[in-house]
Amino acid sequence: MIENSEEVARVLSANNPGEATTEPVLCDALAKAVSNPGRMVRAGLVMAAAKSHGLEAATAEQLACALEYWHQASLILDDLPCMDDAELRRGLPCLHRTYGESTAILTALSLINRAYALVQRAFLLESAAVREQACELVDSALGAAGILCGQAWDLRFSRGLRASREVGRIAWRKTGALLGLAITLPLLPSSAWPRERRTLHALSIYWALAYQAMDDLLDVAAPTGAIGKTPGRDAALSRPNLTIALGAPLTRQRIARLLGLAELQVKQLRERDAKWTYLADWHERLLMSRYRMFIAA
Amino acid sequence: MIENSEEVARVLSANNPGEATTEPVLCDALAKAVSNPGRMVRAGLVMAAAKSHGLEAATAEQLACALEYWHQASLILDDLPCMDDAELRRGLPCLHRTYGESTAILTALSLINRAYALVQRAFLLESAAVREQACELVDSALGAAGILCGQAWDLRFSRGLRASREVGRIAWRKTGALLGLAITLPLLPSSAWPRERRTLHALSIYWALAYQAMDDLLDVAAPTGAIGKTPGRDAALSRPNLTIALGAPLTRQRIARLLGLAELQVKQLRERDAKWTYLADWHERLLMSRYRMFIAA
Repeated sequence: MIENSEEVARVLSANNPGEATTEPVLCDALAKAVSNPGRMVRAGLVMAAAKSHGLEAATAEQLACALEYWHQASLILDDLPCMDDAELRRGLPCLHRTYGESTAILTALSLINRAYALVQRAFLLESAAVREQACELVDSALGAAGILCGQAWDLRFSRGLRASREVGRIAWRKTGALLGLAITLPLLPSSAWPRERRTLHALSIYWALAYQAMDDLLDVAAPTGAIGKTPGRDAALSRPNLTIALGAPLTRQRIARLLGLAELQVKQLRERDAKWTYLADWHERLLMSRYRMFIAA
Repeated sequence: MIENSEEVARVLSANNPGEATTEPVLCDALAKAVSNPGRMVRAGLVMAAAKSHGLEAATAEQLACALEYWHQASLILDDLPCMDDAELRRGLPCLHRTYGESTAILTALSLINRAYALVQRAFLLESAAVREQACELVDSALGAAGILCGQAWDLRFSRGLRASREVGRIAWRKTGALLGLAITLPLLPSSAWPRERRTLHALSIYWALAYQAMDDLLDVAAPTGAIGKTPGRDAALSRPNLTIALGAPLTRQRIARLLGLAELQVKQLRERDAKWTYLADWHERLLMSRYRMFIAA
């Protein structure tokens, strides 16, 4: 997925919070978790932004690792029996199915704890203003107003009035929170921030909604094995799903519109400065390739 | 428990991560959690240290709140069915028994997320050296080498050879992690740190071990209702418990010895400087009063 995926995989392994003194089952679970990092979309976005905006390699690696750890922790917790009760994740049995629920929770918390430390280390020598912005962005993206709120709505969702609007709101909080951090955190030390703030924010919303809408369509329509997780979970669990709310044809229309809006933001950014070109590459990799392969047919 | 307990309770409520836009059940659970803060031992230690060492009130409040949030999150998660499957906590039904497991997990994560932000805000204007130390202390105390490792051992524990030694190791990681942070974090900006580091570290170990040993004895021996949580859980779940490993008489001996060792550290600190007197007060409040009331009989 990303050019430097081996480099990122090495960083994910090097920052593994499991130590020699860590309880062995937790240690095993952590090793398993960090060795199956998925497509590393968030890390890839950070590394690309760092390259274009002149962020130091060590800083970029710490941020990339933190985002992947947070993301992985959110997947581990989402898959628990009391949440989505999933079987498969990234093509393997979910962590709690191998190690038990308690170890899965402790693994997620270990990754979360290390991720906060990594972001602080990444910005250790930055100004108080940059550190404060980083702190606020992380607090709001990951907290009770961000991804955790999205997950709470997800669990409480029932099909009904305004369902497609609710679906969008939940998707933005659940998927957009970490995508937004991946786009913005590496820019904090550069002068690009906060000048382009609004456009970047809009881009992260359209990306998140389009990505989630494609996920929803695939959850309903993909054959088992085509995606690395259990399909049909949304219907089984009455979870927010745009395709269940609107049907496949309207979902396809919605996806096409969101992709167009995302493209427009990227175009505006590129017209202002060529250094935003990496976002066009990521628009292609993250969304368009998936769109053409699974959706546009 | 502490002179300024109303002030701390106000701070715990003011920093509640639940917002107007937060999903209502999660919002309710957060309000419930922050309104039943227990004895606020960790907050009290921070406030006392701040007063003696000249830490600003706003900084002290942020640190105090962070420690109580982390502590409360650890209790919420420890009580889950896949961990200790507890019924009562702080005299009320455990959070997951009122709101369900998923909301309990999201509540704990909301408190954890806000706590990291609070510590960063508390030290925002401190030197990079102080911020780095804070980051390392938190990372190691709360991560896979600290409290999470302690919980993993706790779950994996089976009675047998070296049981009492294992019990101590687990108690130090589980109980000592946050007590250690409560003692040390507020000292980081002052010149007292790292001069007294070794003595303070020893004190936090003896306190944690003595406190946990008293807890173990009460878990085995206290009548229902005398403590704010379900008694007899350790035996029922084969969890590490010093009294189960050694019997009540040897547990009492051990407690007396640990209290003596803790007192020795406090005495050494006070002889060096009268500003450490608050630790003598806390030795009395945290341990000796409980010891006399429940154990020494």
